[in-house]
Amino acid sequence: MNPLEDSRGGQRKPPGCDKLDLQVKMLGGIEAGGTKFVCGFGTGPDDLTFARFPTTSPDETLAGVVSFLKEANLEAVGIGSFGPVDLHPDSPTFGYITSTPKDGWTNCDLAGRVRASLGVPVGFETDVNAAALGEARWGAGVGLSNLLYLTVGTGIGGGALVDGRVVHGLVHPEMGHIRVPHELARDPFPGACPFHGDCLEGLASGPAMMRRWGKPPERLPRDHPAWPLEAHYLALAVVNLALTLSPQRIVLGGGVMRQTQMFPMIRVEFTRLLHGYVRHPAVEERIGEYIVGPKLGDRSGILGALALAEQAAG
Amino acid sequence: MNPLEDSRGGQRKPPGCDKLDLQVKMLGGIEAGGTKFVCGFGTGPDDLTFARFPTTSPDETLAGVVSFLKEANLEAVGIGSFGPVDLHPDSPTFGYITSTPKDGWTNCDLAGRVRASLGVPVGFETDVNAAALGEARWGAGVGLSNLLYLTVGTGIGGGALVDGRVVHGLVHPEMGHIRVPHELARDPFPGACPFHGDCLEGLASGPAMMRRWGKPPERLPRDHPAWPLEAHYLALAVVNLALTLSPQRIVLGGGVMRQTQMFPMIRVEFTRLLHGYVRHPAVEERIGEYIVGPKLGDRSGILGALALAEQAAG
Repeated sequence: MNPLEDSRGGQRKPPGCDKLDLQVKMLGGIEAGGTKFVCGFGTGPDDLTFARFPTTSPDETLAGVVSFLKEANLEAVGIGSFGPVDLHPDSPTFGYITSTPKDGWTNCDLAGRVRASLGVPVGFETDVNAAALGEARWGAGVGLSNLLYLTVGTGIGGGALVDGRVVHGLVHPEMGHIRVPHELARDPFPGACPFHGDCLEGLASGPAMMRRWGKPPERLPRDHPAWPLEAHYLALAVVNLALTLSPQRIVLGGGVMRQTQMFPMIRVEFTRLLHGYVRHPAVEERIGEYIVGPKLGDRSGILGALALAEQAAG
Repeated sequence: MNPLEDSRGGQRKPPGCDKLDLQVKMLGGIEAGGTKFVCGFGTGPDDLTFARFPTTSPDETLAGVVSFLKEANLEAVGIGSFGPVDLHPDSPTFGYITSTPKDGWTNCDLAGRVRASLGVPVGFETDVNAAALGEARWGAGVGLSNLLYLTVGTGIGGGALVDGRVVHGLVHPEMGHIRVPHELARDPFPGACPFHGDCLEGLASGPAMMRRWGKPPERLPRDHPAWPLEAHYLALAVVNLALTLSPQRIVLGGGVMRQTQMFPMIRVEFTRLLHGYVRHPAVEERIGEYIVGPKLGDRSGILGALALAEQAAG
């Protein structure tokens, strides 16, 4: 299978140049999503070569991914995957996509199959943890040890770095499902989460906006009342996460955050809700650098997978 | 100044035995509170000798503390302090109590003064972080690397261990001030937090209960409707913190949690609110061991200070 397309920001080398790559050890990355797998190789953002493959069956999708990554002389591969996944190194199903309803992918040994096919060490993470790691390594979190990355799109998910390491714990965080106060007076929409109704994801994901307003968020005008409400819910979430993790910076990514008019609204609302409670110049004087968009744009995930490869290579 | 009293669980050695201590290196701990300083020495829970001094002026209180701790042959001292404190090792005011309104204690170099008086390494933390560390070292979190300790009393505060280390970040967490949904229909009380009104602390601290119900929580009957409401707010908080930090166990301490009838209520409500979202036997099968009280009782803080001393001693 051939790559569907070459992505902006990436460069495909002409076939004759591949031999050059054999001289240099490269890192491979796989951003495994429910609709597409983005994969790439290189040593960082400046020389990333990447391609996309649709998520069909594991056999078909992985055949394309592996054949593409074999073009490079890989030292290691990192995978940031859709979930749920098993991240426990001691577990017999470590590196698996576990109980996904997605056809054919339930209990898929993603990391094991990639390792077996490519014969190199494999790093494995959730997609959002990988994106957090990508921003920490090459994006908005460079030089910081404590970073929070929140993605707001089809779902809401968060990845946190504490002391430079991704937070796991018992399983892994599911920050998208925290409860925040529901503004029932101005927002009677009951929430869209099948598990929790009006949890954060139920109130503020892309599908929640779609159901509340009857059209997809990208088709709502920039001055629509949807945006201050959305900014309010996201600010509540950011307040809770900031008070729990005390990150040095908060990166908000994902499709809904392409509506960049929300950043100033979220910063104002965050400051109002926090009410002077975090006394630090990063919050009190430089809020514009405290709550930011991803510096790597759409590439946080795939570059995070590369950063995972770097760690796996040791 | 003499110790006010010897505490239950602690042992004072008769003066003649003090010479024995000179043979053994001991750890010292200070739990610095706004009304009293608890201090102790020993090597752990089994041989802890401790005493309490009222929090008057820094000169007077520290004179008592230092004179008591000098009885032992200390290797290092740990301090868990009321705040706000400066925990940044690189800061010129590291180890200070900073902007407290408490008379005489503003910008008090607590760690520096203790270090100068006792001439040993000093570890320094917030009071709740120290308590989390105490439970991790000798209490409900032994053997776990990811632990959450939440204290519910005059205020609400949380301390988290991730990969065995206390989470700091930009400043330090202030989990007591997260926002949770306010049950306005059954609870019109506006909240008691001077900063945020109906944040968690504003809804669920001891003083919030006092103001809502007109009497201190310890005087409310065990079947009073105050308790299911309190358990509901605490369960919301525990859900949010669990989804953000993914701890392996959650310890709920502090004065309000002496109402142990709340533990089963919180567990049931936590499970209902989580709605199957954390798929792990620790939550799904052993909730009674997942949300627990402090195993060290009232001694989490002072033993956490001892654990800090152990770390400072290297």
